[in-house]
Amino acid sequence: MTSLLVLYRRPEGGPEALATLERRYRDEHLPHVAKTPGLRGTRVWRVAGSLGGETDLALVAALDFDDRAAMDDGLRSDPMRQAGRILREIAPGLATFLVVEDASDLIPG
Amino acid sequence: MTSLLVLYRRPEGGPEALATLERRYRDEHLPHVAKTPGLRGTRVWRVAGSLGGETDLALVAALDFDDRAAMDDGLRSDPMRQAGRILREIAPGLATFLVVEDASDLIPG
Repeated sequence: MTSLLVLYRRPEGGPEALATLERRYRDEHLPHVAKTPGLRGTRVWRVAGSLGGETDLALVAALDFDDRAAMDDGLRSDPMRQAGRILREIAPGLATFLVVEDASDLIPG
Repeated sequence: MTSLLVLYRRPEGGPEALATLERRYRDEHLPHVAKTPGLRGTRVWRVAGSLGGETDLALVAALDFDDRAAMDDGLRSDPMRQAGRILREIAPGLATFLVVEDASDLIPG
């Protein structure tokens, strides 16, 4: 399985700006994401804090696809293009997009 | 659900150092993690790259607990203390520990 792991930094403007980002992320961005062909699962987390340090992260999302080819197809799809357009509007410069591969071979059976 | 999301930066020393880190992470660290009381699930990803930028990350792990109290108990347990001791040896200064909360309320039903 290949996933797109998206790390969102906290917007400037404090809790109000974060609430606005969350609302538009939920109401405008994620409905497009949900229509992405090949998307097998979506998980979203709020960052509550970090242990032993500071973090500038506010949200993390994991979008699962069968493999890298399916993810690339999904990213090129119309729903994901629309989702990306909205994201650039509501969270400009705040997102880091990691392509990650399941490493279940590292987990003790 | 509360999860510990651990972001591991790439060690200095290139692919050989990363292979050593992965081997010790699998053989020494994760077996202790697996014994943590209250641990509900473990997912580990290899970072294949990032879209539209560079990344210094190599691995990401998500450790799931029922809630923050269960996570805090788990972190104080003997298995997690041993896991932490090994981690400080095999990946000194390379890990960021994010406490994250499921935000499934943001995902379109």
